[in-house]
Amino acid sequence: MLIYLDNNATTKVDEQVLEAMLPYFSEQYANPSSIYDFAKPAARAIKEARGQMKDFLNAANENEIYFTASGSESANMAVRGVLGTNKNKRHIITSKVEHACIFNLYRQLEKEGYRVDFIDVNAKGELDLAQLKEKIDFDTALVSIMYANNETGVVFPVKEIAQIIKSKNPETKFFTDAVQAAGKIKIDVQDLGVDLLAVSGHKFHAPKGAGALYVNPGTMITPLIVGGHQERGKRAATENVPYIAGIGKAAVLAADGLGYEATEIKRLRDKLEAGILKNIFNARLNTGVTNRVPNTTNIGFEYIEGELILLHLSDLGICASSGSACTSGSLEPSHVLRAMNVPFTSIHGSIRFSLSKYTTEKEIDYVIEKMPAIIDKLTGLSPYQDELDALKKLKM
Amino acid sequence: MLIYLDNNATTKVDEQVLEAMLPYFSEQYANPSSIYDFAKPAARAIKEARGQMKDFLNAANENEIYFTASGSESANMAVRGVLGTNKNKRHIITSKVEHACIFNLYRQLEKEGYRVDFIDVNAKGELDLAQLKEKIDFDTALVSIMYANNETGVVFPVKEIAQIIKSKNPETKFFTDAVQAAGKIKIDVQDLGVDLLAVSGHKFHAPKGAGALYVNPGTMITPLIVGGHQERGKRAATENVPYIAGIGKAAVLAADGLGYEATEIKRLRDKLEAGILKNIFNARLNTGVTNRVPNTTNIGFEYIEGELILLHLSDLGICASSGSACTSGSLEPSHVLRAMNVPFTSIHGSIRFSLSKYTTEKEIDYVIEKMPAIIDKLTGLSPYQDELDALKKLKM
Repeated sequence: MLIYLDNNATTKVDEQVLEAMLPYFSEQYANPSSIYDFAKPAARAIKEARGQMKDFLNAANENEIYFTASGSESANMAVRGVLGTNKNKRHIITSKVEHACIFNLYRQLEKEGYRVDFIDVNAKGELDLAQLKEKIDFDTALVSIMYANNETGVVFPVKEIAQIIKSKNPETKFFTDAVQAAGKIKIDVQDLGVDLLAVSGHKFHAPKGAGALYVNPGTMITPLIVGGHQERGKRAATENVPYIAGIGKAAVLAADGLGYEATEIKRLRDKLEAGILKNIFNARLNTGVTNRVPNTTNIGFEYIEGELILLHLSDLGICASSGSACTSGSLEPSHVLRAMNVPFTSIHGSIRFSLSKYTTEKEIDYVIEKMPAIIDKLTGLSPYQDELDALKKLKM
Repeated sequence: MLIYLDNNATTKVDEQVLEAMLPYFSEQYANPSSIYDFAKPAARAIKEARGQMKDFLNAANENEIYFTASGSESANMAVRGVLGTNKNKRHIITSKVEHACIFNLYRQLEKEGYRVDFIDVNAKGELDLAQLKEKIDFDTALVSIMYANNETGVVFPVKEIAQIIKSKNPETKFFTDAVQAAGKIKIDVQDLGVDLLAVSGHKFHAPKGAGALYVNPGTMITPLIVGGHQERGKRAATENVPYIAGIGKAAVLAADGLGYEATEIKRLRDKLEAGILKNIFNARLNTGVTNRVPNTTNIGFEYIEGELILLHLSDLGICASSGSACTSGSLEPSHVLRAMNVPFTSIHGSIRFSLSKYTTEKEIDYVIEKMPAIIDKLTGLSPYQDELDALKKLKM
């Protein structure tokens, strides 16, 4: 049995997405840049997908969309691309809770001589907007704030952030990593007022290795991968036609599914959350703010080790995670939960469950049924029995 | 009908490669970094493919192989990666006939303040080794010379080049773009003595969007895409498990097919070449050196326009090309043929035919049969009738 509740790590490729990709492997396999007729279906597939992605993000024009090979590449291309066009500005602002990928990129840029400010979040995971406003100055080349957090699901007020940035320094570019928002909540780049926005296909049922980057027409970028003319000279490499067709199809399906996400997936997530919190005395919701993506919950189990919970869940075929997959294997507690000052008693035992359109009520019921025994067993093995007893008394 | 003779532009995905990829889209779709059991098949698939690629290139160790999303990315990662580890050395050597992708990268590096020497080739497309030797100095960070040329198929003496480089400056790193060699001739990184070597899956029947980079253990590189821990911290992004499995399988098939390539594909290429040269008075082989990859021929048709030939071929379902797909649409004649001093009379009418294991004798016979009428028609429309008459008399 497989109960896959780790959809923020990656998702199953939708059968319709696979179907959209299949013709471009061994049938319409031409290089889309070739001039003969046989190359036309491949070139058309790219054009169609670019239109689909444009609609998905509500960009004004197809040529604001660049296809890439991952969310990481999109983010690197956005950040390096903006910094590459103006080497005199040396200040960057980001948050303390960005995805590990972005976080490490800014650590690297610090080593390269950039001044980087990491904005705080409060205990609920909400961004300190006043601090952000204060930090923007004449030298700020780029603000990079994610749309939705991968670990907690907290959605940042991207539109308000864009307004704050532009009011303080209209020349500062605003990049948002929307990898965890895409397919979960509506994205409208024009309404948001962002300059650059990255998505990753494998978070919304396209394959791993398919990404996109939106760049508004007023924003110049230098290419990360230099070479051929593809993607209007901004991203060299023969186009990955099957995956481009796939991410386009996935974008259409994701847009169609936003209603289901906001109602049914949210209902199942809320049921899972309530079921666990009700039945387990040492379970503690890491953030319960309303403004979360509908599929994500992050729950701390006090005085026990998250990895052990995950292994017990794995034995039952249940997939969940602690932190991001990109940092798994590391024994350090999540930098996101640390930034929220989650108490040490539960930070090590925090588990993220992330649902998808394939999640069923039966699966959620099963997890609610099985969790108490797992936590009970591990609680019994904890070296913190006195603290646990005190906690139990408090809750009863 | 489709007669696909543009396999240096891209290839059909082998059905066995597609089969190797399929389980990782909608079945074994886990993020390979996740710790639960469900992620193990995905992690194993990557490990197996890394071993297959190691064997294909005869690397000493699996951890010398990095998977990327294209040959272009591999090349950018190699070049920027080497330059990133030693910012004091500011000299690069490459050739005048590198693929457009590499060529543009070096033009970009010149703008960034690097001193770049472009080594000449002779009329047969062979590299000037004496010039190469002379240019290497204490400041040379990198030599970047391709293994086989995409337009002419000419194979450069990579092993000898490595020896020349190391004898002049043991600290100079040697990168070879082996994109057009992989699957056509044997690649043995240890025997060659190269430091870095790039391949692209879609040139040997894996999909577009699958690449690899070999880096020997004595060579340090900085990452191009910074972020997660994947590919030992050198290339962030959730691994594209299906394509990694696919390029691994394609590498196995390519290694198995080298004998067929060297005998049967070469026989068909030679037959095509001889058939065209025999029957068309204004056809001229752009290079006939023995040391070419077995699948490629490049023939100039004097006093006519290549694009017109390609469109007439396309009408018959025959796919061929002038220059590289990456530069098609440009009216500039190929920089490769210009470097070889191909006369202006035939440089504009040069056509590359590139075969694959799927090419049949019947297809070759058909092209040999159809070419004369196409060329005859276009020759009749040429404004150079006096020159054509003189040429005809000469040939008879």
